[in-house]
Amino acid sequence: MPKFECMEFTAKVIADFLNGDIEGNPDEAVTNVSKIEEGTKGTLAFLANPKYEKYLYDTEASIVLINRDLRLQKEVNTTLIRVDNAYQAFAALLDMYEKSRPQKSGHADNAAIDPTAVIGENAYIDSYVVVGKNAAIGNNVKLYPQVYIGDNAVIGDNVILYPGVKIYDECKVGNNCVLHAGTVVGSDGFGFANQEDGSYQKIPQMGNVIIEDDVEIGSNVSIDCATMGSTIIRRGVKIDNLVQIAHNVEIGEHTVIVAQAGIAGSSKIGKNCMIGGQVGIVGHIQIADGVKIAAQAGVSSSIKKEGEILLGSPATNIGLQRRAMAVYKNLPDLRQKILDLEKEIEQLKSK
Amino acid sequence: MPKFECMEFTAKVIADFLNGDIEGNPDEAVTNVSKIEEGTKGTLAFLANPKYEKYLYDTEASIVLINRDLRLQKEVNTTLIRVDNAYQAFAALLDMYEKSRPQKSGHADNAAIDPTAVIGENAYIDSYVVVGKNAAIGNNVKLYPQVYIGDNAVIGDNVILYPGVKIYDECKVGNNCVLHAGTVVGSDGFGFANQEDGSYQKIPQMGNVIIEDDVEIGSNVSIDCATMGSTIIRRGVKIDNLVQIAHNVEIGEHTVIVAQAGIAGSSKIGKNCMIGGQVGIVGHIQIADGVKIAAQAGVSSSIKKEGEILLGSPATNIGLQRRAMAVYKNLPDLRQKILDLEKEIEQLKSK
Amino acid sequence: MPKFECMEFTAKVIADFLNGDIEGNPDEAVTNVSKIEEGTKGTLAFLANPKYEKYLYDTEASIVLINRDLRLQKEVNTTLIRVDNAYQAFAALLDMYEKSRPQKSGHADNAAIDPTAVIGENAYIDSYVVVGKNAAIGNNVKLYPQVYIGDNAVIGDNVILYPGVKIYDECKVGNNCVLHAGTVVGSDGFGFANQEDGSYQKIPQMGNVIIEDDVEIGSNVSIDCATMGSTIIRRGVKIDNLVQIAHNVEIGEHTVIVAQAGIAGSSKIGKNCMIGGQVGIVGHIQIADGVKIAAQAGVSSSIKKEGEILLGSPATNIGLQRRAMAVYKNLPDLRQKILDLEKEIEQLKSK
Repeated sequence: MPKFECMEFTAKVIADFLNGDIEGNPDEAVTNVSKIEEGTKGTLAFLANPKYEKYLYDTEASIVLINRDLRLQKEVNTTLIRVDNAYQAFAALLDMYEKSRPQKSGHADNAAIDPTAVIGENAYIDSYVVVGKNAAIGNNVKLYPQVYIGDNAVIGDNVILYPGVKIYDECKVGNNCVLHAGTVVGSDGFGFANQEDGSYQKIPQMGNVIIEDDVEIGSNVSIDCATMGSTIIRRGVKIDNLVQIAHNVEIGEHTVIVAQAGIAGSSKIGKNCMIGGQVGIVGHIQIADGVKIAAQAGVSSSIKKEGEILLGSPATNIGLQRRAMAVYKNLPDLRQKILDLEKEIEQLKSK
Repeated sequence: MPKFECMEFTAKVIADFLNGDIEGNPDEAVTNVSKIEEGTKGTLAFLANPKYEKYLYDTEASIVLINRDLRLQKEVNTTLIRVDNAYQAFAALLDMYEKSRPQKSGHADNAAIDPTAVIGENAYIDSYVVVGKNAAIGNNVKLYPQVYIGDNAVIGDNVILYPGVKIYDECKVGNNCVLHAGTVVGSDGFGFANQEDGSYQKIPQMGNVIIEDDVEIGSNVSIDCATMGSTIIRRGVKIDNLVQIAHNVEIGEHTVIVAQAGIAGSSKIGKNCMIGGQVGIVGHIQIADGVKIAAQAGVSSSIKKEGEILLGSPATNIGLQRRAMAVYKNLPDLRQKILDLEKEIEQLKSK
Repeated sequence: MPKFECMEFTAKVIADFLNGDIEGNPDEAVTNVSKIEEGTKGTLAFLANPKYEKYLYDTEASIVLINRDLRLQKEVNTTLIRVDNAYQAFAALLDMYEKSRPQKSGHADNAAIDPTAVIGENAYIDSYVVVGKNAAIGNNVKLYPQVYIGDNAVIGDNVILYPGVKIYDECKVGNNCVLHAGTVVGSDGFGFANQEDGSYQKIPQMGNVIIEDDVEIGSNVSIDCATMGSTIIRRGVKIDNLVQIAHNVEIGEHTVIVAQAGIAGSSKIGKNCMIGGQVGIVGHIQIADGVKIAAQAGVSSSIKKEGEILLGSPATNIGLQRRAMAVYKNLPDLRQKILDLEKEIEQLKSK
């Protein structure tokens, strides 16, 4: 999303744009892109990784971008465009295409925008969107249908909120952010004080969420507000689907969090970390910059060493964990060895 | 959902429909169903599994369906209807009931249907639904309130989309599919290219999601579109709540995926597999047909053997895993044995 | 949420309300609260835990609540208010503040309320809310935008449903409950009967969900209806974000369930339990009262001992599990010891 639609491009137009050279039919036309191994007529593919060269000779893609220096092993049935760097050229093409597409625009009549809200220029606001009191919406923002923006919330420039995103009161979303459908920003932190009778009393959650610039968040993510102060998602962070970010968490710049991971209250994650899918991180700990945590790991104490790589639950250094895992697999054999040793010792003793 | 409402049926009506024989009061009436062990007055229950026969003699259900050949051990206080197969009769009754209920129908005035969208016959479209440009909606479709259907999306016949389901542009949903509230189909795949300065550049996600016929999907599920091409959910797949399906994944026919499982990008799952709750499957692997993966397992490499059963994280053959788990539990004893052996050997050596 | 807004309070007003004594400037004013270690000008903080006393002497918070008996070690730069119990005073202040705030009220014109629905007094119903046929909404209820209430659903007094909450037909929500954005109550249980051809036939899900009083539920939670009868969330239960509750589950009073945990069909959880984040509990088991289950544990059989503490997957008693984990970490050393023993025995034997 946005999807490729049925605009048609010829090899000539593409080669001109990319400053490439055509080998084949300059009038060959494409309306979509494909992977080279799944190429179909009317699509454009690219070949960058030599491992995929074998597909070049059979692909049914109508046009393939290849590197200028690639020496063909066989004849090809497709039109080639030679460029300096096929991968970069492909990315540039997609980017050009996206920018050239008709952009969503306009305010739907059936949206509920509070008169005190401030809306920037060139914003697209679609049906059944709600924008609360004193909310501030930047320029070039896209609010898809059924989005909710709470009172006093601030949305930066060039932000895209897909259908049904919910931003609670007082939360802030920086410039150039993208949030996918069903994601919730600012729900209450999970804070309850244990009472003597076994029941729980709610601790009021007074804080907000601050999402800095260039953050992308997947679908059905939950990010809680802080108890006091702010839950903070720093610049450039990328968060996958169904991730849980608890109250008062701080995620450092350019950290990546894969689907279904969860980070408990008040933990601080460093910059440039990679947190794998379904990882769990307990509350009130710190993770140093550049730490990588493998999928399904469970981190239960602070990680102070930058660039550490962790595996397992409880998570430990990946090398140590792999050695333990290797022995674990053979535990029944190891047990047998011990039983054998016991017997041998009995025999030795009886001598 | 749909729920059983307050229509009343007598034993006579039910017995006639099921071709069954009444033992008791033909005028006994029920308005709902219950489990035999939780039966209350005014409900109908069934007894199929002999393990539950003990409940038959105490149940307060007003009517119980039993097998024609069941020989009672004691007197019962309820009206019985004897049928050839009590379980199948009960299912037939529920099915008849559902079909006889008043069906949701009509187009709400307060829905935003683009004039270029094509809507089939007998569709029910409720309040605050959005249907995008050139979308195609089949016959007998039910769109509950606040559903979103993107541009060029295609929805087959007899589909039910519960409140707040979001279908992104270009995605396709086959015939007879049911998607529950809050589920998102077509959000961007999690694809970012690492830049030299530590930041990430988004890889445009140009593909879509194709859901084939007879698929049922729970609530708050996330299914990402393909980077190029399609993420594919094959015919008859059943997906539980809060499941993550990443870009370019393919799920084979009649595979079942339990709640909170996650499948990473480009992995292909075979037919008739069973994937347990909270399972994680890494990207770019293949799982053979008929593979069963136990809850919380983590699968990190392709499984080539059809019908393999896997357990643990990292997942291995269930038999091997269970033997290792059995030894694991006794590790402290095993360690003690080794310490004892060391002492004994010291003694032997000193002799 | 609700958030602290820009109302201003002076030390004098606060001290009068709390029956406290001012040391400093009675005209010092605050508009928000902060943690003492993160205090900024214009905010009020509190000091209850002696561990945090060091922050008192540097905090930039304009006012700090402290215990009457605290003896200062140094001079402070902030205005103090002495009270009997600083933590309780702070909580009382937040509570007073929340109650004094302008409350959301009124019915939006652009909500779709079925004429047969019954709405209590003083309800707030915002834009694009849908309330179905014969639904009953209590007094002082707050329905944020885009909430969906199905036919015959019952919502108690003083309930808050945040944006986009979906309550299916026939479900019941007790008094004083709070449900956060994107949460779904009453989606179909995951019940399918295996057919001979490998496909699955849906088992109709006829039951509902009953949520008792004083329950709080986070965002993007999925709670399925019962196959027959009710899925039940008892009084005072607290459920965090992205939790899965399957059909026919029963959660006992005052049990707490942390984010991303999942409970499979028909399991019964006792009272006053604590279920950690990402825990998985299989179907058809019972968990005794007061059981605590550590994060990421996998519970695969009934727990009969009240107050048991469990860890690991498969989950066992925490003491046993910790001892096994401790040995596990050293498995490579243990293996080496065994290899050494084998050698030594060979030597002894050859003597």
